Amino acid sequence: MATLTAPAAGELRSIDAATGEPFGEPFATNSADDVDAACAAAAAAFDDYRSRPLEERAAFLDRIADEIMGIGDPLIEAAMRESGLPRARLEGERGRTVGQLKLFAQVVRDGHFLGLRVDPALPERQPLPRPDLRLRKVPLGPVAVFGASNFPLAFSTAGGDTASALAAGCPVIVKGHGAHPKTGSLVADAIKRAVTACNMPEGVFGHVLGSGNTVGGALVKDPRIAAVGFTGSRGGGTALMKLAQARPVPIPVYAEMSSINPVLLMPEALKARGAALGTAFVASLTMGAGQFCTNPGLLLAVEGEGLDAFLDAARAAMGDAPASTMLTPGIHAAYNEGVEELAKHAKVETIARGQAGQGVTCGQAALFATTAEAFLADAALGHEVFGASSLLVRCRDEAELVRVLQEAEGQLTATIQMDAGDTAMAQRLLPELELKAGRVLANGWPTGVEVAHAMVHGGPFPSTSDGRTTSVGTMAIDRYLRPVSYQNLPEELLPVELRDGAALPKLVDGKPA
Amino acid sequence: MATLTAPAAGELRSIDAATGEPFGEPFATNSADDVDAACAAAAAAFDDYRSRPLEERAAFLDRIADEIMGIGDPLIEAAMRESGLPRARLEGERGRTVGQLKLFAQVVRDGHFLGLRVDPALPERQPLPRPDLRLRKVPLGPVAVFGASNFPLAFSTAGGDTASALAAGCPVIVKGHGAHPKTGSLVADAIKRAVTACNMPEGVFGHVLGSGNTVGGALVKDPRIAAVGFTGSRGGGTALMKLAQARPVPIPVYAEMSSINPVLLMPEALKARGAALGTAFVASLTMGAGQFCTNPGLLLAVEGEGLDAFLDAARAAMGDAPASTMLTPGIHAAYNEGVEELAKHAKVETIARGQAGQGVTCGQAALFATTAEAFLADAALGHEVFGASSLLVRCRDEAELVRVLQEAEGQLTATIQMDAGDTAMAQRLLPELELKAGRVLANGWPTGVEVAHAMVHGGPFPSTSDGRTTSVGTMAIDRYLRPVSYQNLPEELLPVELRDGAALPKLVDGKPA
Repeated sequence: MATLTAPAAGELRSIDAATGEPFGEPFATNSADDVDAACAAAAAAFDDYRSRPLEERAAFLDRIADEIMGIGDPLIEAAMRESGLPRARLEGERGRTVGQLKLFAQVVRDGHFLGLRVDPALPERQPLPRPDLRLRKVPLGPVAVFGASNFPLAFSTAGGDTASALAAGCPVIVKGHGAHPKTGSLVADAIKRAVTACNMPEGVFGHVLGSGNTVGGALVKDPRIAAVGFTGSRGGGTALMKLAQARPVPIPVYAEMSSINPVLLMPEALKARGAALGTAFVASLTMGAGQFCTNPGLLLAVEGEGLDAFLDAARAAMGDAPASTMLTPGIHAAYNEGVEELAKHAKVETIARGQAGQGVTCGQAALFATTAEAFLADAALGHEVFGASSLLVRCRDEAELVRVLQEAEGQLTATIQMDAGDTAMAQRLLPELELKAGRVLANGWPTGVEVAHAMVHGGPFPSTSDGRTTSVGTMAIDRYLRPVSYQNLPEELLPVELRDGAALPKLVDGKPA
Repeated sequence: MATLTAPAAGELRSIDAATGEPFGEPFATNSADDVDAACAAAAAAFDDYRSRPLEERAAFLDRIADEIMGIGDPLIEAAMRESGLPRARLEGERGRTVGQLKLFAQVVRDGHFLGLRVDPALPERQPLPRPDLRLRKVPLGPVAVFGASNFPLAFSTAGGDTASALAAGCPVIVKGHGAHPKTGSLVADAIKRAVTACNMPEGVFGHVLGSGNTVGGALVKDPRIAAVGFTGSRGGGTALMKLAQARPVPIPVYAEMSSINPVLLMPEALKARGAALGTAFVASLTMGAGQFCTNPGLLLAVEGEGLDAFLDAARAAMGDAPASTMLTPGIHAAYNEGVEELAKHAKVETIARGQAGQGVTCGQAALFATTAEAFLADAALGHEVFGASSLLVRCRDEAELVRVLQEAEGQLTATIQMDAGDTAMAQRLLPELELKAGRVLANGWPTGVEVAHAMVHGGPFPSTSDGRTTSVGTMAIDRYLRPVSYQNLPEELLPVELRDGAALPKLVDGKPA
């Protein structure tokens, strides 16, 4: 979902999202030598950082949260101007960012993430004795993080990727997002203050600025980088995947990319509350100018009673939907292009548009409709239009709806709007939905991603590069760990958390102990 | 570690490992259409299979084990002739294979592998209520398995990849190994009898034979295949990785490939028991004609007291080491080539050779030595020679030994032979060892991989394609699963194991419950 503003040679300016004009002091971009130095510092810090007691690591995460709060209003003001997002949203996002850091501090203290396992020796076993085997997860190594434009705090410099990688014990180098250099630099400075305050090795956090192709590419190719976290466009994510796979030693890329988040409007729900659904749908669609990874970009319904009421209410709500400043001029241009392509598509009907805005980067919401037949015939209709645009696919019957689902690409979310009378049909559809998406919702809207233990913000390709993972919630830490087994190690050599009597949760002979 | 015997067009013959001559009835190889049909059947079976109660899935795994035992001696005899491995070893391997299936049956019954998590709704939370979130892991889909030549039972048709994928709920299609078509077909038939006996959908298991390039490539490229398990050569594994990454929807490849398994001979251990170490080392090196993934192919020692005693004892033991039939004529030829390259290398000294054998495919053990300087200057000295060949690297001091370790590629195992007086040095080396290998051993030998909960048979590239995983032990099941989060689903729609009151282990609000 990210589009980079091309920087002037050697510097990067903040761009006012509302006007497209540069403002404030310029930021120096980094060279390949700077990237090399950051990687060397991260590699040098790794053994020290990962071997600190868990409580020190947790306190460091807490301190980062405190330092971010300590920036105060200048952080909110910078983010407002650079992203065009309103104050309340950014204050909420800051709360989420800080809460996420503190949650990962708790995860570190709990120790469950270490995946400790012990299979005690069986010296008398026949025909061969069993050795003493103990397992823990260790961090992969320095992680390169590429933040997103649409959450300049929660998915950027100190966002979920950074928090989970630091929690895992990995040094982090953030490639600062070109759409919010001021916001990112304020947060990077806060992290650096926490590094000093907590007496952590300096290289545990690095921050570089510059173009994705040079600075970003150099980071991913550096042999000292062990994994990549990315939130952004499909093009950007797949480019990083290719770079990572072509290395002499390939590394994992966790890219959260592209999703249109199908919402299934079930027959009985439409009958009972079509109008209410239409109104609520538009609220979800237009929230934050539609710039959420989980924005409901695809509606599926079987033609029938209640669909007209849904559309009437959606039309009315769209008419009231004000235009909102989009994140960057580039994102605004891409949105307009995507909407225009749908508007002029021979098989697509324009149902409603939102209000046109005054600002040069204001996004005008859009709702389109097409038939299942047309959708199935043209893969382009299934591509993400990042912003407040959605496409209703009218299906003749359940079988056609299932075919549309089956042909759809991998998704972050899939939602069912259902009433009790829809249960049998929902039960038939669920197996398809859970294979297609990382999160399945009933009677809600996909926007709004809880930072929790049971959250999955991930899903089959192309919603992410690796559907076995999540980038939100405590399971995000698993991405930056790998297991190591220790066989017959003397006590003095064993990691402390695997020594006899250590208090952390573990499996002993496969059973929780 | 596998080399395929090129099949005659349309058929494949068993080859007697000892003579290189074909024997027995020919096996028809499969066409691209057959692969397509197997994938279609696997895809059709997937939803049925994965939704069976866990007890049915467990009973199916148990039944496969019973059916394999039911083949009786003809299985052992086929494997002996096709692999050249002796009876006792193959009977042990059969026990391991059957035990592994039964262990995974227990893993399925325990339910820990589902990774269940529940974050109950918090309807009163301010400023926003928290939804009800429940998470489980679901199987990825049909898995293609490529077995190894060196374990015709435990790493082949019903080996660890097949057992763990079936346990995860994935249908499996095995590409039968060309070096043991008879053994593989007997096992495949046993699995098919279990499918019928347990009333499982037929497509839950498929078996195809043919060349890696056509049949194997078609399998990996098929859009219905969701993951690949492979044990074999680095060339074969990296070729599958490339195919999988080039698909419109990339899929994970779990390839266990190439490892030389460094063994560190620490100064005090050498002083105290150099001769005993030399004898024990040769026993580990020559076991099974050295055809183990974890064979000790690299010895590291600092020059000093005890190293001569180690070498004298190793020389004596090598002189007593009989030549053993290797798995295939191709593997035998590749071994000889690798050994000859070392023997004629200007910087490499031949320490000892084992006995020369009478058979045309007998491997003659080999021990070489070189300096750290030479090893660091020539990457080829760090490549695997599959078979009973090992290279001692003489280091001037600890710093040089550390450099050799740091330059070594990723490994399945790393071993320290140490005495109490070596503890401080071992503590300094451990961080390096655990970043380089999936399993770290003290005072043992890496051959012998326990099937256990705390085992890791994996490691950084190129020992495997994905160092975050293991192919042996109960954690192997994680490779074929991905998490799905369910938000606010009505009870009737929730998977049974996530409903209130379900008895399986889970995390509630992040705490074991």
